[in-house]
Amino acid sequence: MIKPKQTHSKKELSVKEYVSGLADGNISILGRVITLVESTRLDHQMLAQDILEQCMPTTGKSVRIGITGVPGVGKSTFIESFGKLITSLGKKVAVLAIDPSSEQGRGSILGDKTRMEALSIDPLAFIRPSPNAGSLGGVARKTRESILLCEAAGYDVIIVETVGVGQSETAVHSMVDFFLLLMLAGAGDELQGIKRGIMEMADVLTITKADGDNINKSKMAVGDYKRAIHLFPAKTNNWIPKVLTCSAYEKTGIEEIWETISSFVNHCKCNNTFEENRKKQAQFWLHESIQEQLGTYFYQKPEVKKLLPKLEKEVVEGKLSPFIAANQLIDLFKK
Amino acid sequence: MIKPKQTHSKKELSVKEYVSGLADGNISILGRVITLVESTRLDHQMLAQDILEQCMPTTGKSVRIGITGVPGVGKSTFIESFGKLITSLGKKVAVLAIDPSSEQGRGSILGDKTRMEALSIDPLAFIRPSPNAGSLGGVARKTRESILLCEAAGYDVIIVETVGVGQSETAVHSMVDFFLLLMLAGAGDELQGIKRGIMEMADVLTITKADGDNINKSKMAVGDYKRAIHLFPAKTNNWIPKVLTCSAYEKTGIEEIWETISSFVNHCKCNNTFEENRKKQAQFWLHESIQEQLGTYFYQKPEVKKLLPKLEKEVVEGKLSPFIAANQLIDLFKK
Repeated sequence: MIKPKQTHSKKELSVKEYVSGLADGNISILGRVITLVESTRLDHQMLAQDILEQCMPTTGKSVRIGITGVPGVGKSTFIESFGKLITSLGKKVAVLAIDPSSEQGRGSILGDKTRMEALSIDPLAFIRPSPNAGSLGGVARKTRESILLCEAAGYDVIIVETVGVGQSETAVHSMVDFFLLLMLAGAGDELQGIKRGIMEMADVLTITKADGDNINKSKMAVGDYKRAIHLFPAKTNNWIPKVLTCSAYEKTGIEEIWETISSFVNHCKCNNTFEENRKKQAQFWLHESIQEQLGTYFYQKPEVKKLLPKLEKEVVEGKLSPFIAANQLIDLFKK
Repeated sequence: MIKPKQTHSKKELSVKEYVSGLADGNISILGRVITLVESTRLDHQMLAQDILEQCMPTTGKSVRIGITGVPGVGKSTFIESFGKLITSLGKKVAVLAIDPSSEQGRGSILGDKTRMEALSIDPLAFIRPSPNAGSLGGVARKTRESILLCEAAGYDVIIVETVGVGQSETAVHSMVDFFLLLMLAGAGDELQGIKRGIMEMADVLTITKADGDNINKSKMAVGDYKRAIHLFPAKTNNWIPKVLTCSAYEKTGIEEIWETISSFVNHCKCNNTFEENRKKQAQFWLHESIQEQLGTYFYQKPEVKKLLPKLEKEVVEGKLSPFIAANQLIDLFKK
């Protein structure tokens, strides 16, 4: 007789077991804790927070890298080559994704692990698809906590991938040490492609697919972007963004990017901006979390739930000013 | 004996007197009520809200126009010509400014009324400088309420001016019916100038200073921007943004802009997006106001004030996760 396959057979672990699993770099435990972080169940969230609280002293030691670029720029191919380079140096790399617009089953970024075939079976690598669709704030929090958990599990480099079209870049920028923008060569890209605000966030701008017939176009693009970057406001860390080229296909330029990141980290650690930036980010996320939780608490209050639709209707019909309506709701809330 | 000059001799008015003054289109009453809206004094704010509440039924009948462009594009000169055209048609125009970065005395936009000499003495025009520096949220609310007050005072067209470099454009975009972007002709502008996100918000893009030696450059710029706009995502109201030129100096192109705005308003009223957009904006401002007031209430709580610095320190030092710290503060707040 064949035993039925048990899909939910995983043993419940204690906080201590989870924490020591992470400390051992147990990849399956890491995956399970991130699942808890991503869960909408309250008991899962509380468990996740307990684990996270225990882990805090062992976090913070990685280099956090944000990578973005429009669809088609070759992000997965790049991350595969880049990740393999990092593991070849004996370092552990984790790849997370942030994509608030994605829905399960609709081909979210990193949803398909097979896009990074070699990296996904590398014992020094951990790849985690984007959490399910949700508000940017929620997805950002989950990604930020996943970074901490990966650090607790001993990962030296954390890559946060995002698709370079929306608002998520700002969120990623506020949780990484270094921001890499991948771009394609070719006329008109500047207009068709990436928002200027995203370009201004980049510490390195890399032209991908700089191989074959594309080499000349790539060289021209480097010149164009160097001139463009020249006009951007200076960064507080005094780092001057670099423009590089690479080919994941010909495996060129990847090492140079890694070396540039290393010199960026040195640069920022020397002038103390590495630590300063992390502190500012932590503070930013504290107030973001407060705002998020405050909102959740407010909108769940039965009195608010009851009165809101009526006031909203009056505001929409122009009978009540938004400020006065908000005032009435807050007054009710205070009681 | 010379009587000492009394600087604070203005008689206190009742809510009813303010409201009927507005209904009469009394420009000095309008100015005083906006001063109440801008005041940080609680009694002023409460009075302002009472007045606003009474006025709500008479608001909403103007065309609200946002105008932006980088410094040097000639916003004041343009608004002067544009405003004079509107008053020459027998319509009343109000000009407000939003500029959260400005500080009194540091040459804020519209701070110097003499920059619009002819318009400022036109009996059909009302010009109001930007409120003093404050958070974007605060300044935006004040501007939004000033729009309503100007409508209550019978203004047919409300212009909200903003300086095209920061975040305030998004705020203005969410309180106007129509968004006009002023740009200069000339190579490299696209990169040096305005953020792409701001370009995408524009309903009309106008090349200013299209006169003299500048005419050919302006024509080329029109072609460039038309191609650029072509690549932007379609607007929900199905309006295709126009690219125009004007010269405030030679008084050309101004009428065409006004006619385009009129056809925009017709277009949007016909397909119901005018009303829909206003409703969405009202809803947006309701939730923005809730968030703002909720935050103010939270951070003023003595218990929060007492615990926050300690938790903030632990978060910044990486000892506590921002989420847990926020959780602790919210728990305290709930009690």
